[in-house]
Amino acid sequence: MKIFDRPGFPNPARIRIVLAEKGLDSQINFVSVDLIGAEHKQAEFLEKNPSGVLPVLQLDDGTYIAECTAITEYLDNLDGDPRLTGRTPKEKALIHMMQRRAEAELLDAVGNYFHHATPGLGTALQAFKSPAWEGRKDWGDRQREKALGGLRYFDNVLKDSPFIAGDHFSLADITVYAGLMFGDAAGITIPDDHAALKTWRETVSEIPSVKNRSGQAFGSEDLRRLGF
Amino acid sequence: MKIFDRPGFPNPARIRIVLAEKGLDSQINFVSVDLIGAEHKQAEFLEKNPSGVLPVLQLDDGTYIAECTAITEYLDNLDGDPRLTGRTPKEKALIHMMQRRAEAELLDAVGNYFHHATPGLGTALQAFKSPAWEGRKDWGDRQREKALGGLRYFDNVLKDSPFIAGDHFSLADITVYAGLMFGDAAGITIPDDHAALKTWRETVSEIPSVKNRSGQAFGSEDLRRLGF
Ligand SMILES: N[C@@H](CCC(=O)N[C@@H](CS)C(=O)NCC(=O)O)C(=O)O
Ligand SMILES: N[C@@H](CCC(=O)N[C@@H](CS)C(=O)NCC(=O)O)C(=O)O
Repeated sequence: MKIFDRPGFPNPARIRIVLAEKGLDSQINFVSVDLIGAEHKQAEFLEKNPSGVLPVLQLDDGTYIAECTAITEYLDNLDGDPRLTGRTPKEKALIHMMQRRAEAELLDAVGNYFHHATPGLGTALQAFKSPAWEGRKDWGDRQREKALGGLRYFDNVLKDSPFIAGDHFSLADITVYAGLMFGDAAGITIPDDHAALKTWRETVSEIPSVKNRSGQAFGSEDLRRLGF
Repeated sequence: MKIFDRPGFPNPARIRIVLAEKGLDSQINFVSVDLIGAEHKQAEFLEKNPSGVLPVLQLDDGTYIAECTAITEYLDNLDGDPRLTGRTPKEKALIHMMQRRAEAELLDAVGNYFHHATPGLGTALQAFKSPAWEGRKDWGDRQREKALGGLRYFDNVLKDSPFIAGDHFSLADITVYAGLMFGDAAGITIPDDHAALKTWRETVSEIPSVKNRSGQAFGSEDLRRLGF
């Protein structure tokens, strides 16, 4: 299998954590895409994923799978033991619900703030990300408020539950974790009084699949060059 | 099990199709929520789903499941034969990828256009849907263009494939179908040259679970009162 991605970015990090969690790293050839140069907005990449975002998994039969949720469904079900996406109907439902909330209320909100209310990843990509209609800073700033609301929501969830979607580490935890890493880089950090979220983050940081990947999650050469 | 929804709206219709497809209708108590009166934005409903949208499934143990994808995962896996969400890792991945695209590029884009660039469902709800920052008509109008792009994308997909995510009717078809129904009501209809999408729509309309539900999909009393 191949994965088209860029180490150092939050959505690619989600799948690298999944691969480590499932012991599948050695079966993947990674192909690096020049995100800063907007390679993912050119025709060749759009053939693979018309949404123009990373990562993309290519199966050995040539099929392309985009969207981290879909990629995780594939990788997690290969061994017949889908503990990241849920083994029972109820687990599956809770994990998919919380994963969707983690994208909408946190990870994607941080991304929208970053790309629309800050200089983002620089000029090449900005041309694709911030056309005038949504480049208005107030729209981007609203996304910041939304992300802060997401942090508060997940802090509340974690007051009653060890993990985001119940008793086990899952896809939903990975999405929230990627959201926090993106938040750090974008200047949206956990408020001091969100103790449950902070404790959970420490616990998750120590999970081997996360610990070994976290250096890659948001802190690459690309970003250092941009001044992060 | 209970479902909190409102017949006549597209996301509720998605789950009603799933219920018919899985033969589960008789196990559900439906509770109607006053969408036009913005009952789903009040504290009592937000306890069930903090995102403030319909439908919500309540399991017999009291657990609330929001998000159609998550609800469908639950209902589809109850009988151990998840044909709507995928039986194999590859089916699951393709269905989740296409379902996510169907929301982002079509159903949610139509909804954003409807709520932000038209009078939507009227004044009570509009206060929650269209605060000044995103009420700018140009933002809503861009969502219309996005939805039209979605129609073109799915027409292309259907040139090579009988259904949205392969050879079988799935969750992804249901989402696109709901997107078309919402589009009809919002004035975003299939362009004449999208023959594959039109043919697919006719085929899907004749599937019993869809046929029996389609009257409920977008055309309720609520909407007739609003002039649709
Ligand atoms: N919903 C997508 C999000 C993917 C995404 O936004 N990836 C980022 C990298 S972290 C990206 O490609 N950003 C570049 C862009 O949006 O142009 C997923 O789950 O894969
Ligand atoms: N992503 C959600 C979307 C739900 C949704 O937007 N439902 C509509 C009814 S079709 C709603 O509640 N709209 C009222 C609102 O947005 O205030 C899902 O899959 O359930």
